[in-house]
Amino acid sequence: MTAANTGRRRRPGRPAGNSDTRDRILASARELFARNGIDRTSIRAVAAGAGVDAALVHHYFGTKQQLFAAAIRLPIDPMTVLVPMRETPVEELGLRLPSVLLPIWDSELGAGLIATLRGLISGADLNLARSFLQEIVVEEVGSRVDNPPGTGKIRALFVASQLMGVVMARYIVQVEPLASLPAEQVAQTIAPNLQRYLTGELPDGLAP
Amino acid sequence: MTAANTGRRRRPGRPAGNSDTRDRILASARELFARNGIDRTSIRAVAAGAGVDAALVHHYFGTKQQLFAAAIRLPIDPMTVLVPMRETPVEELGLRLPSVLLPIWDSELGAGLIATLRGLISGADLNLARSFLQEIVVEEVGSRVDNPPGTGKIRALFVASQLMGVVMARYIVQVEPLASLPAEQVAQTIAPNLQRYLTGELPDGLAP
Repeated sequence: MTAANTGRRRRPGRPAGNSDTRDRILASARELFARNGIDRTSIRAVAAGAGVDAALVHHYFGTKQQLFAAAIRLPIDPMTVLVPMRETPVEELGLRLPSVLLPIWDSELGAGLIATLRGLISGADLNLARSFLQEIVVEEVGSRVDNPPGTGKIRALFVASQLMGVVMARYIVQVEPLASLPAEQVAQTIAPNLQRYLTGELPDGLAP
Repeated sequence: MTAANTGRRRRPGRPAGNSDTRDRILASARELFARNGIDRTSIRAVAAGAGVDAALVHHYFGTKQQLFAAAIRLPIDPMTVLVPMRETPVEELGLRLPSVLLPIWDSELGAGLIATLRGLISGADLNLARSFLQEIVVEEVGSRVDNPPGTGKIRALFVASQLMGVVMARYIVQVEPLASLPAEQVAQTIAPNLQRYLTGELPDGLAP
């Protein structure tokens, strides 16, 4: 921040707020989310850890899931992807998921997503990556495809594994020709496989 | 190394060789493999970079691919997995690949593999990860499934993406219940999807 900027409270594209306070809240959030996951971490506890009022946390960051996204430095609220999926019939999720996700990775948000993913898997943030998969992706997607009952979580995790693998190969390792394929062709190639995980037959014994 | 060990040239489980010389060879190999890939790096060039004779490199590390495996700190020669695949009919590769790979990751070699993978994707070694995928995995597997001609590489890369994703979710992020499933069930769940990538229909326009 330059000297000329120091006095400005509200900058375009960034919520208002004293940046020391914001950083204290994010540090408290990262610590608590990493230790206890998302469900068992309250905004109140994050606020207490940062020495601020819970209302201020809501004011700066919105919902708990938005706070989590900010804590893991996700450049986009995962709900902007996941909420539209709620209106997609499960038979179409296999194509819809990668069709929405890949263009985001291909966009100007991609660099931030790559940095976040590399940080999550290389560093001390593996607990946060696990919470993201388990408490956001599996919750949202798994609950839609829990058929027969008890299979939803593992269905969603196999979907996540294929999406994560494509993201790794295409955006992190950048292996050709996968890195240069149009997003639409990648989506169409993996869609039937994602759909099988979501609604297809699974081997015996996979349900708990 | 303790003082008592210092004089020993040959330790169990490790090839003979002066460790300074070995390290110089490995440093030269990493640099050249990262810059030029595997195919365009010669043992002679690695030897020259380390100031030793090419015969010594062969003596310490074996083939160029074994040298590459040592350079990326792979605790197992990838050919011990890939060579048996040559005898597996392509229609069975979808099940055979994960059935051989996952038990290795579940074995005592797993910790070393996890460390290697995390190093490859987090650090400055992305070029080495790319070479591994492009010049070893794609070469070995892609050449078996190049039908219609021109599709072999991309088929192999989608297979690699699913395998990498499962490895990430199961061994790096360790998300449950995927992390605790028996390897056999994981293999059977992903096998039909791998097989589709290997020999199934692909979307139009995917072949070059």
